[in-house]
Amino acid sequence: MASVQPLAELRAVREPGKRMRSRLLDAAVELFKEKGQGGVSVAEIAAAVGAYPSQVTYYFRTKEALFVEAACREVLYVARQAELAAAGAASGGDYNRRLVETVIGSPGLALFVEALSLTRRRQDLAPLIERTFERLHAEGDRAYGETRHRRGWPEAESAATVARRFWTLALGVALREGATEASVPEAVEEMVALLRHDLGAARRTPGDA
Amino acid sequence: MASVQPLAELRAVREPGKRMRSRLLDAAVELFKEKGQGGVSVAEIAAAVGAYPSQVTYYFRTKEALFVEAACREVLYVARQAELAAAGAASGGDYNRRLVETVIGSPGLALFVEALSLTRRRQDLAPLIERTFERLHAEGDRAYGETRHRRGWPEAESAATVARRFWTLALGVALREGATEASVPEAVEEMVALLRHDLGAARRTPGDA
Repeated sequence: MASVQPLAELRAVREPGKRMRSRLLDAAVELFKEKGQGGVSVAEIAAAVGAYPSQVTYYFRTKEALFVEAACREVLYVARQAELAAAGAASGGDYNRRLVETVIGSPGLALFVEALSLTRRRQDLAPLIERTFERLHAEGDRAYGETRHRRGWPEAESAATVARRFWTLALGVALREGATEASVPEAVEEMVALLRHDLGAARRTPGDA
Repeated sequence: MASVQPLAELRAVREPGKRMRSRLLDAAVELFKEKGQGGVSVAEIAAAVGAYPSQVTYYFRTKEALFVEAACREVLYVARQAELAAAGAASGGDYNRRLVETVIGSPGLALFVEALSLTRRRQDLAPLIERTFERLHAEGDRAYGETRHRRGWPEAESAATVARRFWTLALGVALREGATEASVPEAVEEMVALLRHDLGAARRTPGDA
C-alpha cells in the first residue's frame, strides 16, 4: 500500500495538468484556424481558457511548438474523417473523390501546410512532423489496402505508394490553392484529375484519358 | 523627328531604372536563398548594391512583393534547367529522373514554396503566382509533349496533365523535405517512386510495381 499512495497523489496532480494542456490546445486550434500562426499571440490563447501566458509556455515551450502540435493533431483528424467518408465507396474512383472532398479545403490540411513551412526554419520541431507523416502514410496504407482487398479492386500498385502519392499531391494542391484565386471546388477537381491515372492504370473506365 | 526625341529621352531615363531594378532583384535572390524571406531586410538588399532602402520600395513596393517576384523568377529558371537536362533522355523513366534531380533540392523551388506560403495571407500577390503556375504548366506540357512525340514514347495521358502532376508532386515533396530530416537524395528517390506509375501505365518496365 505504501507505493500506491504516492502514485495516486501524483495522478491527482497530473490529471488537472493534462486537462489544462488539452484545453489550451483546443483553444489554440480554433484561434489558429481563424487567424493563422502569425495572427495569434500566446496571451490570446491563454485568455481564451482563463489561463496565464506562462501556462502556455509551461506546457508547450513556444507558440511555434504549440502551433505545430495543433496542426499535426488536426491533419490526423482530417485523415480519420477522410477514411470514414471513403469506407463505403463503390469504386476506386469514388474512393479517391470522397478522400479528396474531405481533405482539400479542410482547415486541418491548411494548418499542416503552414506548420511544414514554419518547420523549414525550426528544425527542432521536425521530429513531430516526421511522426505525423509516418502515421498519415501508415493509416492511409492500411485503410486503402483493407478496402481494396474487401471490394476486390485491382491491386496494380502497393497501397503504401498510393497513400504516399495521395498525401504528397494533397500538400501540393493545398499549397497552390491557398496562394491563388482557385476555389476549393476547383482544387478538388484538380486533385481528382491528378489521381485519375492511378485508377486508369488499374482499370480503364470511361472518361479516363 | 519631334516625336522621336522624347521617346529617346524617356528611354535614357528608363534604362538605368531597369538596370537598378534588375540589380536589386539579383541581390535579393542571393540573400533570400541564404536566409529566407524573414531573415533579410530591405536595408540589407539595398546595401548589397549600394542603393537606398527607398529605391527597393520604389521598384517593388514591399519586401514581400520583391520576395514573390524573386521566387517566381527562380522557379521558372529551375524549370528551364530541368527541361534542358531532360531533353536528351533515353526513356520516359530517364526523363522523369532528370527532371526530378534538377528540381528537387534546388533553391529556386524552395523559394517558390516559401512564396506560396507567404501569399496565403497576402492575396494581393496572388496574380503573379497564378501567372507563374500557368507558365510552369504550359512549358512543362510543351517540353514533355515535344520530347515524347519526337521519341515515339506512348501517349497514354495528355502531356498537360503529366506536367501539372509533376509540379504538384514537386511542391508536396519540397514542402515535406524542408520540414523533416529527409535528405535531398531521399526526396529525389521518393518523387521518382511517386512518378513511376505514370510510366507504368504507359509502358510496363522491369521494376515497376
